[in-house]
Amino acid sequence: MSEFRVSSLQLEAFIASAMTALGLPESDAKTIGELMTEADMQGSDGHGVIRLVPYAKRILSGGLNLKPNIQIIQERTAMALIDGDNGMGHLVMKRATELAIHKARSAGIAWVGSRLSNHAGPASLYARMALKHDMIGLYFAVGNANHLPPWGGLDMLLSTNPIAAAIPTLQEPPVVLDMATTVAAYGKVKAKAQRGEMMPEGWMIDRQGKPLLDPTKSDEGFLLPIGGYKGYGLSLIVGILAGTLNGAAMGSQVIDFNKDFSTTTNTGQAIAVIDPAAFGDIQDFKRNVDQLVRELRGAQRMPGVERIWLPGEQSHQKRMDHEKQGVLLAPSLVKQLHELASQLAISPLTALKH
Amino acid sequence: MSEFRVSSLQLEAFIASAMTALGLPESDAKTIGELMTEADMQGSDGHGVIRLVPYAKRILSGGLNLKPNIQIIQERTAMALIDGDNGMGHLVMKRATELAIHKARSAGIAWVGSRLSNHAGPASLYARMALKHDMIGLYFAVGNANHLPPWGGLDMLLSTNPIAAAIPTLQEPPVVLDMATTVAAYGKVKAKAQRGEMMPEGWMIDRQGKPLLDPTKSDEGFLLPIGGYKGYGLSLIVGILAGTLNGAAMGSQVIDFNKDFSTTTNTGQAIAVIDPAAFGDIQDFKRNVDQLVRELRGAQRMPGVERIWLPGEQSHQKRMDHEKQGVLLAPSLVKQLHELASQLAISPLTALKH
Repeated sequence: MSEFRVSSLQLEAFIASAMTALGLPESDAKTIGELMTEADMQGSDGHGVIRLVPYAKRILSGGLNLKPNIQIIQERTAMALIDGDNGMGHLVMKRATELAIHKARSAGIAWVGSRLSNHAGPASLYARMALKHDMIGLYFAVGNANHLPPWGGLDMLLSTNPIAAAIPTLQEPPVVLDMATTVAAYGKVKAKAQRGEMMPEGWMIDRQGKPLLDPTKSDEGFLLPIGGYKGYGLSLIVGILAGTLNGAAMGSQVIDFNKDFSTTTNTGQAIAVIDPAAFGDIQDFKRNVDQLVRELRGAQRMPGVERIWLPGEQSHQKRMDHEKQGVLLAPSLVKQLHELASQLAISPLTALKH
Repeated sequence: MSEFRVSSLQLEAFIASAMTALGLPESDAKTIGELMTEADMQGSDGHGVIRLVPYAKRILSGGLNLKPNIQIIQERTAMALIDGDNGMGHLVMKRATELAIHKARSAGIAWVGSRLSNHAGPASLYARMALKHDMIGLYFAVGNANHLPPWGGLDMLLSTNPIAAAIPTLQEPPVVLDMATTVAAYGKVKAKAQRGEMMPEGWMIDRQGKPLLDPTKSDEGFLLPIGGYKGYGLSLIVGILAGTLNGAAMGSQVIDFNKDFSTTTNTGQAIAVIDPAAFGDIQDFKRNVDQLVRELRGAQRMPGVERIWLPGEQSHQKRMDHEKQGVLLAPSLVKQLHELASQLAISPLTALKH
């Protein structure tokens, strides 16, 4: 079978047409198409079009509000709390981020939280939105399935609660961090299982605390947090800031979105935007970040290390590659998307011509 | 030799009298005495009175401004940038935190950065200040010595750049995270060397990337970041937010405060304060955090685990123990403090009577 590559325009149009067929208003479907495609373009392929089939399943199960009344329910000069009315997370968090950018422009910093939101794709999607306004974006979210117990515990009460940060630069690629607070995201475990590979030590442990290497037995163990108890603490703090503070699900309230497609997830997220222009000259700031980036990249390297990467540099390169060559989709995913197209009676996704 | 224990009042008074003898105004000396003692009381003994001798050395070397003009140099509704004028970090960050709390009360969130500051003790000291106002505190700082290379590199361009977060509760101890972005803080390595112990694998690596276990050879290697490249990314982001954004030292500009006692460190820190009352009822929020804390603490435990700890719970317990029994000081530290007292012609620190 030949490679199946699609352009961003093809992908956007396909996702939008699926979302429209599923009952979303056309402009919302378009927004979701753009944001999901952006995830694939930057190489966050666990959070892009691969999620279309589960999203569709949730919509068809009545688990998502197709015409949500997304509204501000609490507001002060530099903050807001948005009720997503159980709409698609992309719509909720795009609205939240735009509001945070607007508020940060006058206040210097702004923080907008969400409740009754849903999975919104990769964390960096929203942190990155601040960049084109020459601002810094910080994003926190409660993950949509608990795979992490408190340190020393067995009950999975915490999720991979991710953190993203995006820092504007002058000539260098922006510095963009996007990380789960666990050593591996759960999607990586599932990918190992699909490929029939073992996991490296340090990703998961079993209920005795021993290393768990077989990804097909992932139900018998837990993800490990980064830095042991430190990552447990980080996951908890992120969860309180993105969940509890917003009146969103946290701890045992979190719905496993891979198993339950109809219960309202009450997902919580938070976006903070900082305007560096409030601290001094914006060009100076961006130049100083460039200089720091070059200093780190130019550091002497350990034997066998070909290159020192900055956070976000690899996804920057993937974005450029994907713009030229399109996004490569796995055969199993293409098959699923074809089946979805047939089910929704829309035109199937077409591949780029070679 | 019998145990040398001191009460918080004894410790505060001794530090204040040392600082006054060193030339600081009396009220500033008192503030520093209180904050440094608070570090010991909460068990952050690497950041409390143990630092008095190095601080004195820096002051006597002309490396600190005794009568700084600490002032706001940039300000918007929800942010400020404070120039510490090379004063003691405790004075700068207390001022910054009070300002952030004040601003957060109306804006909902506030962020205050510092430049030309200095080492200010444990990160949680300032995050915790928000608690008595029923607010959330987040703190970020550039560490005062570089022990971390970029991932794959050999040049130590990054520090242990810590993060702290403090979350108010109703009846439970507050949730307080205080962590370096490296697996071990450098002070822990030095403590292992003093005790003649080996380090566990995972704390440090040598220049070939192999585990370094002998703490007396710490100059031949580097600290490891938590979660590998993730901790490198976190350390970098914290450094940009606390350093570069404020026009403070970052990367190769960082002065090693253990080796150079006279050059201005231009330390950068940042405090963010969030008012949960802006998001909804404050009692509800605190009750929900309590409930989450109890849920995590009550989780089923791994074999051999006696108790599940929440972040900040151990330091909460240490504070209560220290209030009853005083703080235990190591003989070597007591000797140093006695020598300092003699040098400054002040009354030596006295121990609690048994």
